[in-house]
Amino acid sequence: MEISWDPRTGTPVGETPTTSAEQVEATLAAAAAAARVVASVAPGQRAEWLRAVAEAIEQPDVASELVTIADRETALGLPRLQSELARAAAQLRFYADVAEEGSYLRATIDGRTATSPDLARVQVPLGPVAVFGASNFPFGFGVLGNDTASALAAGCPVVAKAHPAHPQLSARLAEVAAAALAAAGAPAGTFALVAGFAAGTTLVTSRHTAAVAFTGSQRGGLALWRLANEREVVIPVFAEMGTVNPVVVTRAAVVRLDAIAAGAVASFTLGAGQFCTKPGLLLAPAGSKAAARIGAALEAAAPSAWHLTGDIAAAATTGVAELTAAGATVVSEVPAPATGWGARPTVLSAPVAALTRGSRLLEECFGPVLVVAEYADDKELDHALGELQGALAASIMTSGADDPETPGLIARLAGLAGRVAVDEWPTGVAWTWAQQHGGPWPATSAPGATSVGAAALDRFTRPVAFQNTPHHTLPPALQAANPWRLPRRVDGRMVLVPDVDETAASGRGPSS
Amino acid sequence: MEISWDPRTGTPVGETPTTSAEQVEATLAAAAAAARVVASVAPGQRAEWLRAVAEAIEQPDVASELVTIADRETALGLPRLQSELARAAAQLRFYADVAEEGSYLRATIDGRTATSPDLARVQVPLGPVAVFGASNFPFGFGVLGNDTASALAAGCPVVAKAHPAHPQLSARLAEVAAAALAAAGAPAGTFALVAGFAAGTTLVTSRHTAAVAFTGSQRGGLALWRLANEREVVIPVFAEMGTVNPVVVTRAAVVRLDAIAAGAVASFTLGAGQFCTKPGLLLAPAGSKAAARIGAALEAAAPSAWHLTGDIAAAATTGVAELTAAGATVVSEVPAPATGWGARPTVLSAPVAALTRGSRLLEECFGPVLVVAEYADDKELDHALGELQGALAASIMTSGADDPETPGLIARLAGLAGRVAVDEWPTGVAWTWAQQHGGPWPATSAPGATSVGAAALDRFTRPVAFQNTPHHTLPPALQAANPWRLPRRVDGRMVLVPDVDETAASGRGPSS
Repeated sequence: MEISWDPRTGTPVGETPTTSAEQVEATLAAAAAAARVVASVAPGQRAEWLRAVAEAIEQPDVASELVTIADRETALGLPRLQSELARAAAQLRFYADVAEEGSYLRATIDGRTATSPDLARVQVPLGPVAVFGASNFPFGFGVLGNDTASALAAGCPVVAKAHPAHPQLSARLAEVAAAALAAAGAPAGTFALVAGFAAGTTLVTSRHTAAVAFTGSQRGGLALWRLANEREVVIPVFAEMGTVNPVVVTRAAVVRLDAIAAGAVASFTLGAGQFCTKPGLLLAPAGSKAAARIGAALEAAAPSAWHLTGDIAAAATTGVAELTAAGATVVSEVPAPATGWGARPTVLSAPVAALTRGSRLLEECFGPVLVVAEYADDKELDHALGELQGALAASIMTSGADDPETPGLIARLAGLAGRVAVDEWPTGVAWTWAQQHGGPWPATSAPGATSVGAAALDRFTRPVAFQNTPHHTLPPALQAANPWRLPRRVDGRMVLVPDVDETAASGRGPSS
Repeated sequence: MEISWDPRTGTPVGETPTTSAEQVEATLAAAAAAARVVASVAPGQRAEWLRAVAEAIEQPDVASELVTIADRETALGLPRLQSELARAAAQLRFYADVAEEGSYLRATIDGRTATSPDLARVQVPLGPVAVFGASNFPFGFGVLGNDTASALAAGCPVVAKAHPAHPQLSARLAEVAAAALAAAGAPAGTFALVAGFAAGTTLVTSRHTAAVAFTGSQRGGLALWRLANEREVVIPVFAEMGTVNPVVVTRAAVVRLDAIAAGAVASFTLGAGQFCTKPGLLLAPAGSKAAARIGAALEAAAPSAWHLTGDIAAAATTGVAELTAAGATVVSEVPAPATGWGARPTVLSAPVAALTRGSRLLEECFGPVLVVAEYADDKELDHALGELQGALAASIMTSGADDPETPGLIARLAGLAGRVAVDEWPTGVAWTWAQQHGGPWPATSAPGATSVGAAALDRFTRPVAFQNTPHHTLPPALQAANPWRLPRRVDGRMVLVPDVDETAASGRGPSS
C-alpha cells in the first residue's frame, strides 16, 4: 500500500494500493495493444480525446473534489490548486490544438509522380510512454500534466506512475481521465495508472515501453536514464530535472535592488520553493549588499508554507547544512510553521570564489532556499557562470531596455540554459508554441527536448520514410489528397493549408 | 603512425601520422574557440563555406588526385569513387541550401509587443561535433560526408577522425577542405582532422566536444555511446549503425522471382556488400525456391570485388561460419579474387524457425552475404518480423501496385525500420528533404535522428527560449525585422517569406 500524508500535520490520511509487477506488465500490454489505434487515428480525433479529459476535470463537482484531495495531500492551498487544475485543462487543450494543426508530423514529400512519391517522410508515434510526473505540480506536471498530454497528442498510449506525494489525487485523476477517454471513444489501454516504487522500475524495463518521460530530481531522473540504457533495446528517457537557475543582477540594476529583492523573495519562496525553475543562485554586483537586502525582504514577507513530503522537508534542512559546509553563511531565515513539514525560507550568502565546479553550492536545493554571491567585475562574473551546470532557466535583472550589459549576458546565459528571461523570474513556465523547458545536461537527459510547449510532442515520435510507395498505401499524412489538411513540405517547399494557416507574409496564389 | 593498405594486394602503401592526445585537445580547443563565430554568422554565410568546399573537391586536378588515393586505399574502383565524390559535393551543396532556407532554426515567436516578444525560441548550435566517418563511403560518409556537412550547416565546428581504412584520403580531403574554408572566410578551427584510435577516445571524452556523430558497426557505435554516457557532462551520440535490412517477397511477387533474384544479387553485392543498408535477410514464400534462384543469379553475375580492410575480410569469413553455426546452409558462393582481401559473395538459406531474437542470423554480416528464409504463411512471416532488430531500411517486393499484401507489410515494416521501400532495394540513400537514414534501436542510438537528409541538421542544435527579451538583443533569427528572411511561427501560425517560399495551396495575401 502507498500511504497518503497530510503535510500540515505530518500524519497519514489514507492508503492506496500499489501495482504488482504482473499488473504493470498487463497494463503495458494493454497499452501496446492500443498503440496501433491510438497512432493511426487522425490527430484531430486524439485532440477530441484530450479535450474530453480537460472538460471532465473541469466539471465543477469533479474539480472541487480533485482540489480538495490535492490540498490534503500537498498543502499547496486551494487558490493555487484551483488555478493549477485550470492550467492542466488548458494544457490538455493546447496539446490538442498542436496535434490538430499537424506540423509536428513534419510531412515531407519529394518527387511526387502519378503513382507514388520518390520518398515521403512522416513522424510516427513511438508506442507506450511511461510518465513519471512531478511532486510539485500535482495537476500541471502530474499524471495528466504536460508529459501525458503531449504523449497522447503525439499518438502514444500513456502509463503514468502515481507520485507518492499525492497518490490519492493521482488515482482519482486517472479514474476521471480513463472514463472521459472511454466515453470519447479512445480504445482501452490508451491511458492507465500504476503505483509503487517497484511498478516504476517495471515501467522502464518492460519490453512494451517505448519511451520514458520524467519530471523531478537529478537523482531520480538519472536513475531511470541508467536503467533504460541497460535494456537490450534501449529506449529514450526524457528526464527534466531540477537545476540551480541562476539570476544575474547587472551593475546598472542595483538602483532598483529593493524591487529586485522583493521579486526574488516572491520567486524563490513560491510554492515553498518547490519549483524546478526556482532561482537557486543570485549573482549581484559587489557592494550591493544584495544578500542582506533580500534577507530583509524575506523577513518582511515572512511567507509560511509546507513541504510536500517529509523527505523533501528533511532534504531542504540537510541542504542548508550542506550549503553552509560548502562555504555559504545563513543571512536570514523565517521560522517554519509549527506543525507538520513546515518549510523554512532561507537566504544565504557565499563568496563568489566558492562557486567552483562540483561544489554543493552549484547543485539544486529543492525548497525556499537562495544563495547570493557578489561579483567584483566582468571577469569574476564570467568565471562563475563558466562553473555552473546546465540549467532549465536563467534570468537577468537589468536597469531597463538600454542596459548595456544585457546583450552580452543574454548570449552568455543562452549557452547555459534552455530559457533566458529578462526582468522576469525563472519560475513560471507558459505552455505555448515558443516554450522551451529543458536545457543542457543535466537540466535534461536530452538537450534537444522540451517537456512543455508545442515541441514537447517531438519527443514521442520518430521519422519513417516511404520510398516508391504507392499513394494509396501511404499513411494519410502523406497521401496526395492530404486528408488531414496538414502543412507539408513538398519538393523542399512548405505548403500551407489555406483554412488552417494564414500566411501573412505571402501574397502568392494557387496558380503561381 | 597509421598504415595505408592496398586491399587488392593486402600490402602497405603508405603511412600517415596519428594525433597525440595533446594535439587532439588543442584541436578541440580551437574548435571551441571558433564555435561562437560559426554559430553566429548567418546560415547563408555558412552555406557559402560549404559550397566552397564542394567546389574545391570538384576541381578536376584535385578530384582526380582524391579518387586515385581513394581507389588505392579502398579498391572500390574509379567509376564508383568518381560518382561518390560528385555525391559528396552535391551533399555539401544540399546541406548549404537547407541551412539557407532556415526552417531548421524553427524560429517561433509568441505574443510580440512593441518592446519584446513574450517568448521567442530558436535552435542554437551545440558546439564542436566529433565526426567518426564510415569505412565504406570514403567520400559520401567520410570526413566530408553527411555528418560533417550537416554539422557545419547547423553551425557547429567539426573535428573529424580519419578512418583507418583510408587515412591518406582522409588527410588529403581535410587539407582541401581546410584551405577552402579558410579562403571562404571561415574562422580557424571550423574544421580539422585527427587520426588514430586514441585520438577517437579523446574526441569523445574531451570537455570541448558537444556531440558525436558516428557511422559504422554496432560494436563501434555502442562503444562510443557508452563512453559518452560515462562523462560528467553527458553529450549526445548519434550513431548510425549497420543492420540486417529485411526484404519481404510477397506471395504474388513469386511470378517475377527471377527478376527479384537478379535485383537481390545486385543489391547485396554492391560495393562488396559493404553497405549499412545491405539487404541481409530475404523472406520469400514457401516453395518459391528463392535461395536456389538467388544463388543461381549470383553465380551468373559472378561479381568480383575486394573488402576495404583485412579486418572486414576476416569478419565476413567468420560471419559466414557463424551464420552456418546458427542454422544457415551455404547455397551458393562465388570465389574471391586470388589476391589481397578478396570478397566471397555468398547466399545462405535458413529455416524461418531459426530466426529467433538473439540469433546470429538476425545480426549484420558486413559483406556480400545474404540469408534467405521461406515463410509458410502470414503467421510465420509476422512472427519472424517480430523477432528482428530495428533496421535502417526494409523492402517489400510486390507483384505491382495492386498487390493485396502491400499495405499490411508497409505498416508492419514501418514499425521496424526508418525507411520502407516498395519494389526498390534498401541500398542507396538519397540526400533529400524527406530522407530518413536511421531507425529504431540499434539502427541508431537516437531513434528520432537521421544522418542523411535535411533533418540531419536537427541533431546538432538545441532550443533556447528568450522570455521578455528586448527585440534588439534577440538573435537575428528572432528579431522583428527578420533579417535572415526565415520562415517563422508567429503566435502559432507559420509565416513564410514570399521570395523564399511558394505557398502553392495558399491564396491569402498580406492584408488578410
